[in-house]
Amino acid sequence: MANIKEIARMAGVSVTTVSRVLNNHPYVSEVKRTAVLNTIEKLNYTRNMNAVHLITGRTQAIAVIIPYTNLFYFSVIIAGLAQEALLAQYRLVLCQTDYRTEEEIKVLEMLRNKEIDGVVMVSSTMSSEAIEEYTAYGPIVVCQDRGERQFSSVYIEHYSAFRSGLQYLNDKGYRHIGYCEGRPHGSSSSIRQIAFRDFLEATDQPYNDEWMIYNCLTEEDGARVLHQLLQMKNRPDALIISAGDHIAAGLIIEAWKKGIRIPEDLAVIGFDDQPIGRTLGLTTVDNQLTEMGISAFRIIYDQIQRNDGQPVHRKLEYRIIERNTV
Amino acid sequence: MANIKEIARMAGVSVTTVSRVLNNHPYVSEVKRTAVLNTIEKLNYTRNMNAVHLITGRTQAIAVIIPYTNLFYFSVIIAGLAQEALLAQYRLVLCQTDYRTEEEIKVLEMLRNKEIDGVVMVSSTMSSEAIEEYTAYGPIVVCQDRGERQFSSVYIEHYSAFRSGLQYLNDKGYRHIGYCEGRPHGSSSSIRQIAFRDFLEATDQPYNDEWMIYNCLTEEDGARVLHQLLQMKNRPDALIISAGDHIAAGLIIEAWKKGIRIPEDLAVIGFDDQPIGRTLGLTTVDNQLTEMGISAFRIIYDQIQRNDGQPVHRKLEYRIIERNTV
Repeated sequence: MANIKEIARMAGVSVTTVSRVLNNHPYVSEVKRTAVLNTIEKLNYTRNMNAVHLITGRTQAIAVIIPYTNLFYFSVIIAGLAQEALLAQYRLVLCQTDYRTEEEIKVLEMLRNKEIDGVVMVSSTMSSEAIEEYTAYGPIVVCQDRGERQFSSVYIEHYSAFRSGLQYLNDKGYRHIGYCEGRPHGSSSSIRQIAFRDFLEATDQPYNDEWMIYNCLTEEDGARVLHQLLQMKNRPDALIISAGDHIAAGLIIEAWKKGIRIPEDLAVIGFDDQPIGRTLGLTTVDNQLTEMGISAFRIIYDQIQRNDGQPVHRKLEYRIIERNTV
Repeated sequence: MANIKEIARMAGVSVTTVSRVLNNHPYVSEVKRTAVLNTIEKLNYTRNMNAVHLITGRTQAIAVIIPYTNLFYFSVIIAGLAQEALLAQYRLVLCQTDYRTEEEIKVLEMLRNKEIDGVVMVSSTMSSEAIEEYTAYGPIVVCQDRGERQFSSVYIEHYSAFRSGLQYLNDKGYRHIGYCEGRPHGSSSSIRQIAFRDFLEATDQPYNDEWMIYNCLTEEDGARVLHQLLQMKNRPDALIISAGDHIAAGLIIEAWKKGIRIPEDLAVIGFDDQPIGRTLGLTTVDNQLTEMGISAFRIIYDQIQRNDGQPVHRKLEYRIIERNTV
């Protein structure tokens, strides 16, 4: 295989010019570009892109740190990222971490090792300080509210989004509110638990341990919650389901089967504005997941182009979509 | 930054040994490994992984060609791939193509350019001949039945899986079967359309154009189908919904709202064994999507290790899961 030096010699241009042509760099005259391309064609030169990356310091790839890929929340963010990446002709390196910190660190090491141009951390178990140590090596965007850090962020305020859902139930007259959460120890989950306690205190409602239901991940978990409720002596009159509309869907379907009326016997508000929720007429808090993926990509892409390391912090707005389950 | 030559000189070893240490190659003596690592630490040497890849010819990355990421079918296959990639310490480069052939070709060019070690094509618009031209550059696995090609494949037989669903409805006494499909021109969609016509002919049922419903992608499309059925003078007594259980879910929920009894007024069989279907008691054809992702990764990983280019063809079994909607 011919190398870049040979191509430069045969085309009568500098090595820099060849590498510019290989990378579609704008500052190459048409004459030189044509000379290089003709030479390459003559030699049937196959680029070793690792050589190109080595020369340019750019890989046109961004790593995405994501705990799981097949939960609605994550798959919609990925879709937003992927849509923008396609437009910008960037690759997404998908790093499913299963919430293991050592896997996240490996991905950040890829940034240090120049294998990628940036990292989007959709959800991370690492401390903000630990993440900041890697901002020297390239742009990082975290899809969580971590304050004004040295890395960029795009986020919704989970505390106020969750409290607005609770306030909505309260305004509609519900005073016995239960709460279904996903993983108990996630960072946004912890914030919502604080919001829940603050809300109960502010509205003078007692805390009932039985009404805090964790590990709701799938539709079937939603059905299980309904059965749990049926066995309680003292039932809530409303449920806030932070872990997603699909869990609310499982619960509502099971309620229909059992003759429990929604919202008369039990009001339900979900999160995420999923298609299944629209079909069910589910009231929900829309936290703009597609927009989160799109924004995360645009922020990191701009940072790569600017190359100034200046972090950006973007807050997305949530909104309550009123339908028929509250 | 120190380069590999300097490290080799300072550690008193060959350049080959340094590159072996950088790549965790087993055939390096402990003494030499320690010497290299100490030198690296002394120099605070940051690897440029593109240089490492250039030397080794391996990237520990596999590209995944996928039209969309947020449809259940695709997100479950990605999850299977991601699970195995994590175990094998490989990266997945996610290439969302929106079914555009030119985007698929760009990804295969990455294989030619040695940016990745292999390509998994979850769904492809390219001809088998065009794909075969790239097998010279590295392993390719297609998640479609393309026959005994030079690239590997892992697949379910869409023709017989679909016919078995139809046969099941037929055996239960349904003689007026409607059919909901996703994209009309997908490759597996075309195969199912042939299977449908063959089945009608074999069982002496008339073809009814009105009962072929295309572009069913979301839960809301399922609800729309129910309304379409209600407006027909002559309705089917059963529906086969190849595009996934989530569409069947939208339809069933809408049917409940309208007082249409399932299966008495309308029998429904779905595909994919999704969680929402389990909650609804939906009869379905399970076509093992997670297994497809897992198998695709294992096949390509083995091929990379063996480095012999020998393609593997693996057929996955489907099965009908009987519940309450037929």
